Amino acid sequence: MDYIRDIRIGDFKTGMTVEGFYILKEASPRTTNAGKPYLAGKLGDRNGMIDFVNWDYAGAITAADAGHVVKIRGEVTDYRGSPQLSVTRIRKAQNSDGWKVEDLVPTAPIDRVKTMAEIRRLAESVADEDYRKVALAMLDEYGETFSVIPAAKSVHHSFVSGLLMHTADMLRAADYFASVYAGVVDRSLLLTGTLLHDFAKTREFSFSEMGLVTEYTVEGKMIGHLVMGAETVRRTAEKLGVPEEKTMLLCHMILSHHGEPEFGAAVIPRCAEAELLYHLDLIDSRMEIYRESLEGVEPGTFSGKIFALDKDIYKHE
Amino acid sequence: MDYIRDIRIGDFKTGMTVEGFYILKEASPRTTNAGKPYLAGKLGDRNGMIDFVNWDYAGAITAADAGHVVKIRGEVTDYRGSPQLSVTRIRKAQNSDGWKVEDLVPTAPIDRVKTMAEIRRLAESVADEDYRKVALAMLDEYGETFSVIPAAKSVHHSFVSGLLMHTADMLRAADYFASVYAGVVDRSLLLTGTLLHDFAKTREFSFSEMGLVTEYTVEGKMIGHLVMGAETVRRTAEKLGVPEEKTMLLCHMILSHHGEPEFGAAVIPRCAEAELLYHLDLIDSRMEIYRESLEGVEPGTFSGKIFALDKDIYKHE
Amino acid sequence: MDYIRDIRIGDFKTGMTVEGFYILKEASPRTTNAGKPYLAGKLGDRNGMIDFVNWDYAGAITAADAGHVVKIRGEVTDYRGSPQLSVTRIRKAQNSDGWKVEDLVPTAPIDRVKTMAEIRRLAESVADEDYRKVALAMLDEYGETFSVIPAAKSVHHSFVSGLLMHTADMLRAADYFASVYAGVVDRSLLLTGTLLHDFAKTREFSFSEMGLVTEYTVEGKMIGHLVMGAETVRRTAEKLGVPEEKTMLLCHMILSHHGEPEFGAAVIPRCAEAELLYHLDLIDSRMEIYRESLEGVEPGTFSGKIFALDKDIYKHE
Amino acid sequence: MDYIRDIRIGDFKTGMTVEGFYILKEASPRTTNAGKPYLAGKLGDRNGMIDFVNWDYAGAITAADAGHVVKIRGEVTDYRGSPQLSVTRIRKAQNSDGWKVEDLVPTAPIDRVKTMAEIRRLAESVADEDYRKVALAMLDEYGETFSVIPAAKSVHHSFVSGLLMHTADMLRAADYFASVYAGVVDRSLLLTGTLLHDFAKTREFSFSEMGLVTEYTVEGKMIGHLVMGAETVRRTAEKLGVPEEKTMLLCHMILSHHGEPEFGAAVIPRCAEAELLYHLDLIDSRMEIYRESLEGVEPGTFSGKIFALDKDIYKHE
Amino acid sequence: MDYIRDIRIGDFKTGMTVEGFYILKEASPRTTNAGKPYLAGKLGDRNGMIDFVNWDYAGAITAADAGHVVKIRGEVTDYRGSPQLSVTRIRKAQNSDGWKVEDLVPTAPIDRVKTMAEIRRLAESVADEDYRKVALAMLDEYGETFSVIPAAKSVHHSFVSGLLMHTADMLRAADYFASVYAGVVDRSLLLTGTLLHDFAKTREFSFSEMGLVTEYTVEGKMIGHLVMGAETVRRTAEKLGVPEEKTMLLCHMILSHHGEPEFGAAVIPRCAEAELLYHLDLIDSRMEIYRESLEGVEPGTFSGKIFALDKDIYKHE
Amino acid sequence: MDYIRDIRIGDFKTGMTVEGFYILKEASPRTTNAGKPYLAGKLGDRNGMIDFVNWDYAGAITAADAGHVVKIRGEVTDYRGSPQLSVTRIRKAQNSDGWKVEDLVPTAPIDRVKTMAEIRRLAESVADEDYRKVALAMLDEYGETFSVIPAAKSVHHSFVSGLLMHTADMLRAADYFASVYAGVVDRSLLLTGTLLHDFAKTREFSFSEMGLVTEYTVEGKMIGHLVMGAETVRRTAEKLGVPEEKTMLLCHMILSHHGEPEFGAAVIPRCAEAELLYHLDLIDSRMEIYRESLEGVEPGTFSGKIFALDKDIYKHE
Repeated sequence: MDYIRDIRIGDFKTGMTVEGFYILKEASPRTTNAGKPYLAGKLGDRNGMIDFVNWDYAGAITAADAGHVVKIRGEVTDYRGSPQLSVTRIRKAQNSDGWKVEDLVPTAPIDRVKTMAEIRRLAESVADEDYRKVALAMLDEYGETFSVIPAAKSVHHSFVSGLLMHTADMLRAADYFASVYAGVVDRSLLLTGTLLHDFAKTREFSFSEMGLVTEYTVEGKMIGHLVMGAETVRRTAEKLGVPEEKTMLLCHMILSHHGEPEFGAAVIPRCAEAELLYHLDLIDSRMEIYRESLEGVEPGTFSGKIFALDKDIYKHE
Repeated sequence: MDYIRDIRIGDFKTGMTVEGFYILKEASPRTTNAGKPYLAGKLGDRNGMIDFVNWDYAGAITAADAGHVVKIRGEVTDYRGSPQLSVTRIRKAQNSDGWKVEDLVPTAPIDRVKTMAEIRRLAESVADEDYRKVALAMLDEYGETFSVIPAAKSVHHSFVSGLLMHTADMLRAADYFASVYAGVVDRSLLLTGTLLHDFAKTREFSFSEMGLVTEYTVEGKMIGHLVMGAETVRRTAEKLGVPEEKTMLLCHMILSHHGEPEFGAAVIPRCAEAELLYHLDLIDSRMEIYRESLEGVEPGTFSGKIFALDKDIYKHE
Repeated sequence: MDYIRDIRIGDFKTGMTVEGFYILKEASPRTTNAGKPYLAGKLGDRNGMIDFVNWDYAGAITAADAGHVVKIRGEVTDYRGSPQLSVTRIRKAQNSDGWKVEDLVPTAPIDRVKTMAEIRRLAESVADEDYRKVALAMLDEYGETFSVIPAAKSVHHSFVSGLLMHTADMLRAADYFASVYAGVVDRSLLLTGTLLHDFAKTREFSFSEMGLVTEYTVEGKMIGHLVMGAETVRRTAEKLGVPEEKTMLLCHMILSHHGEPEFGAAVIPRCAEAELLYHLDLIDSRMEIYRESLEGVEPGTFSGKIFALDKDIYKHE
Repeated sequence: MDYIRDIRIGDFKTGMTVEGFYILKEASPRTTNAGKPYLAGKLGDRNGMIDFVNWDYAGAITAADAGHVVKIRGEVTDYRGSPQLSVTRIRKAQNSDGWKVEDLVPTAPIDRVKTMAEIRRLAESVADEDYRKVALAMLDEYGETFSVIPAAKSVHHSFVSGLLMHTADMLRAADYFASVYAGVVDRSLLLTGTLLHDFAKTREFSFSEMGLVTEYTVEGKMIGHLVMGAETVRRTAEKLGVPEEKTMLLCHMILSHHGEPEFGAAVIPRCAEAELLYHLDLIDSRMEIYRESLEGVEPGTFSGKIFALDKDIYKHE
Repeated sequence: MDYIRDIRIGDFKTGMTVEGFYILKEASPRTTNAGKPYLAGKLGDRNGMIDFVNWDYAGAITAADAGHVVKIRGEVTDYRGSPQLSVTRIRKAQNSDGWKVEDLVPTAPIDRVKTMAEIRRLAESVADEDYRKVALAMLDEYGETFSVIPAAKSVHHSFVSGLLMHTADMLRAADYFASVYAGVVDRSLLLTGTLLHDFAKTREFSFSEMGLVTEYTVEGKMIGHLVMGAETVRRTAEKLGVPEEKTMLLCHMILSHHGEPEFGAAVIPRCAEAELLYHLDLIDSRMEIYRESLEGVEPGTFSGKIFALDKDIYKHE
Repeated sequence: MDYIRDIRIGDFKTGMTVEGFYILKEASPRTTNAGKPYLAGKLGDRNGMIDFVNWDYAGAITAADAGHVVKIRGEVTDYRGSPQLSVTRIRKAQNSDGWKVEDLVPTAPIDRVKTMAEIRRLAESVADEDYRKVALAMLDEYGETFSVIPAAKSVHHSFVSGLLMHTADMLRAADYFASVYAGVVDRSLLLTGTLLHDFAKTREFSFSEMGLVTEYTVEGKMIGHLVMGAETVRRTAEKLGVPEEKTMLLCHMILSHHGEPEFGAAVIPRCAEAELLYHLDLIDSRMEIYRESLEGVEPGTFSGKIFALDKDIYKHE
């Protein structure tokens, strides 16, 4: 039989016979009424998810294998109106099997290396020596993780390198507004605060083997990335001998960047740079939510209700 | 006696003898207990306001002259701890007297002609012919008033050409973000909506002879500049044969640009351009409030409570 | 076999064999595991809805026929505890088949012709000539649609001629209060505003073939019936040469009739007639919600939670 | 000298010499810097209030006389731009002096006797014998006080017989709606609940000698007129042998007539009659606030901000 | 076959064969497609609930038997991943069968008799004779029911004698704080108000045969336990000749003990004892919610979202 | 002339001639219209404040001396109905003058030394060695300042040693509840968190020479005492080698002790100890507000509106 190889789940059509590598999202070994063992579960890749069932499966895969990559063969069928994959073969994949991460997990549509280089250039362009030292020291210490983690579990930028993409967009906009509002905004403070505002997300979330957010850490819920971020910046700044006023301002920006107490701000913004950071964060996350939510929506119609916006939105022609 | 000429009220010091042109903000002819007539009131200029009294005044100035420019002579005195001007001469000024509007009313720190030219260029750069036609027709019809009125009575940009300055800042930012979010934002719609979002302020407010906002018009309170603005744009668009979908989108942007019903939005933003317009408006007004509020605040201290922000803010060093 | 003819779905009992005309609410042609085609879907009439299945159906009916009237024959069975109709014959109905609209869709319990006549008489009783001309012109132009559409998709008055019933109730109450509060309320303005407050619902919703609301139009969501209604009234009034103050007041009434921004008002009511209109609208919709929600509730018990009221309500004895 | 006699304070003009009876609102015996005694205070009547001063007064009037009627003679003068009465004679009035209560305190513009008769007729028209008995027994016991007290301290209907006027307006409207919504509303319950909803205001407030509200009683603040009212009705109903269900419904109407917890409702309305009562109360108080607030406002302009409405309102032409 | 006798449902494991007494929570006699009768439903005990099915059952048990105790025999099986009991025998239990209430319904982990004795001692320790008389009279009249009912349907203390446990905890804390804040708190008022604050819950809820809350009574929803409780206390106090001020204060405590209108308070607390009562109620209910919610949560992890707290909570190690 | 010595300002009566030590709250050297210098200002002590004026004063006292203690002589007079002190002599006091701090500034009604000893004993009673070490180390390092500062600027406990009194009350209550809720609350965590919850108030406020709060520090407003407190505790705990889980829990308690984001909590409480701490803080501050607000209120009457409670409160008999 002819198998279509490594087709994305979003492109599955009833009747296709497929073969390829997918993430085992859930696995549940079961027994039929007649006493035969079988395996049911879910498979996923970078743009989709599908239920599968493997009748007469007596292999070694169990619920504990969720998160691993598997190689499968099967046919796309219709089960009560929803697509399902009738799997005939399934095994755990080897690293040597040659599957590609970017096929299996969603990844930011940016060049990670170039974007990191641009961010470093912007950090080096910070005129104030104290702020610049903090920015560069933080990049040196946390930059690698920062460049790959998602910005969230699901709301927006929830893909690999999502935080990098989000921060880079914001830094460029900060650079733009720093010259527009030069009279009231200190570019050095604004850029440094913008760069560092979400650094503690590396500790707020736990991540799957494939790099996606699985859930909040205990510390993430009990302390929060604002307080954790401010504390890390304070320690770095103190080590570098940064004056207290500047350290305090950087901490203030991180602690206040959610803008309002009911959105999670530990304090409200009380300087122009903190106020601006809050709005830049809002704009970039909103625009990304629109981008992600309108994908696949027919022009001239509305999306369904977007949870994070609490409304449905329109895709014009 | 030596008089200091045309010194600004903000620079008055007790003991100065001054002469010059000021706006008569209030005037109240009164009688002393001993039965002598005198005149009390307030004088203002572009950066200050002061109480005055003219003992033994029997001239023709009455409350109805408020808003006019007067020429005065007097001495700055201290009355119960507050400065007061003891006026010895006062008369209404003539146009031929050679006083300068920009001394007497606050004016945007921009070049009006160049800024209008830049705005027109941005309007001409709109790629979509329908939107461009609306933008240019609106500029042709309302541009002159638009270029001189303040954006508000007091909150921010409340000076002459304040609306022009506010709109120009926002248009440049719209241009910037239109390329950043090109995938989700239509530059033509965004720029046209941004240009036109506050055009109906020309009818929402009434203005003093000197060009400042005095109060809301009846229509301004009963209908509001969002609905008035959408209606004017609709009529212009219909005259120009713009397709209904585009007309509707422009109206939507104007009707929703306050973002939330409790901030005055007639409908909530449901397309990316409207969402972005709302945030650009917020950023530019916030940054201007910071700029105006921090003037004169000592570095390292807080302003008093800013009514429009509902908080006091910090001026760092 | 004996068939019960044209019995209402609300009266179906397990075991009945029925024949008659119903609305095809949903239709989904499918295939059994054994490869045989069949048809599943939902049927509805003015007071009920039921799942149906037609085994071995190979006819021409598809999902696109939803909304049409069909003639069916079948037996009421029990499927997992819920009633289901096992259909043996199904075909699309002809207009000549003699089915009655009022059996198939819920309709306001009023005489449409008499109610329209009464509304016209009230409009003619408006003393102010300008307001009267607007009222009558609007009735002439939009009265026919106005007299048949529902007032909502589901909350209240969601049946055929629901808007007419709702408006007539409100107009009579407006007439009553206009004399009670004659000192503060202008009857002409109140009656005209009340008549016209929801006229733009004809464009806010799209309607099924049978006249019920299916969903919001794009314009309905992006502009809203308040702004659309005010604009239509303004154009009509301008054509008739109505003075600006009166036109503005009519627009104000329509724009403010939801009372509070969070309930959708574009501006808040600022004249007595607008304030009163808001409350009359609230009373009539609330009373209708009570009426509809208490139908079928046992005296001495509570309804389930009513979504539109956010509470459960009591039916006393 | 010629004195204008018993002119209302609202009609005072500077320069008038007046004589007549007014209420002493405040009195404060003082001493000039030179050591001479004088009396300062405020006088009021049914439509105004004015500061007064009586130089060289050494009489017996003190702060404790506030609330009494005084006879005065004096001249209307201007003090720092506000009118003031320079009093030359002042003494406490006798009952035999022949002043009229209705000149001195604001009184409802209704015929008290006729209105009470109409209310009794409406109570007698209640079809349900149980509710009717309660209504009549309450009228017998509390009707006299009910017919004279104001409905509030200041918000609306704060004049003598204000509660009577307010309740009568609401009862007529309840009668009107009882027939409109006959299918869902029990007229007997609605009318009885409407009649009794504010009866406990007689105990919620304390009253001045002249019959106006001076402040809340301790019980008024600690228990509230809703709970007090429900309790009184319950006792009356029990004494009359009314069935528990009906007693409970009457109590529910009184306890819920403020509609929302944040407006003071002890429970939320859960039957149609209670819901309607809440809205009728709102309409009548709102319309009266409009009537009182628009008195003296120039047509085509706005009132100042009305505290009870939290907005300014428009008086159209 | 060997049956495990009277094992708790929370301890059921797939494969067990069990026999014992359980509460029939739901029962639904049905027919298979093949026409055979069977019985499906739910069984419960003090710590669990399980679906059951009895194939080929043709006995007399129907839906109306829900709430009764039954004796069953069956096997714990797995149905689509959830446990199910395959019942082979089922009959209604007799009182003579010897089952124990405390096995079948959850009961407060306290000694009811001792706790009631302690509460009575605290009531007798009230120094003020008036308050003490009310406390003891209320205990005499309502104490028996008070000592057995739950405090709620589900949120907290929803087990037998839950109200007793809740009130005893609060009374002890009231006793503690009465001495700490002796300068501002009257111990007699505080203890009496605390004892009586929830007494009317006996009428607010209806109860199952086993003593658990099934739902609100009509009076419970239409009047509420605050107003009912205040009224009962007032009648008791009046019968005992308690002075009006003290009666009023007791009523105030009961009417205000929910603290805020949006939490159901009929009036807000305005004396120190009422304020304190509100917080003691909150503390004890919160701590009990934590206790109940953290049962079975793994240390170092979070509970699921707790509805009554609107958050998930952490169980530390 | 006879002078009453060192009488408290709250006991001043018009006509008294007094001599003694008071705090100079404000001082403003001025000039009469006739050109003579004089001094005006305010004097305060532990229970009052009064305006003063010293005619013909040409001494060295200026506005910069505010906060210092002065010795004065003068007469209590009446100025426009308010008391005023006509000062005839005034000089700055020396430490050797023998005035007593407790006369001049309000001080907590507790024995500071004994209370600190009790707090230390409670800290030593903490069973968990890690928490105990942190508690004791913090007491060693910050205890001295902690024992003298007020808890606030004005709301409650705003007197010397106010924070000590507040914390001691809370610690005792924590100890009480730790045994009541032993099943769900860890006494060691609860006591340590309670002790430390407000320690950073030493840095949040700036203090006058006399030890009262004058205003927030910059850090106090930009970072807040919750984040500052958590950070200090973290550093102390890390130095002592406390395990991360315990350090995190202590930080969580401090960060969440305001309970709700709108009350300033950086995160919401998610463990039982943090929840309880929030309520203990609320109870103790509320009871103290009642105590302070009811001082001087007549039994049977209401206080004026208490800003911090947003209501007026009742003092029963």
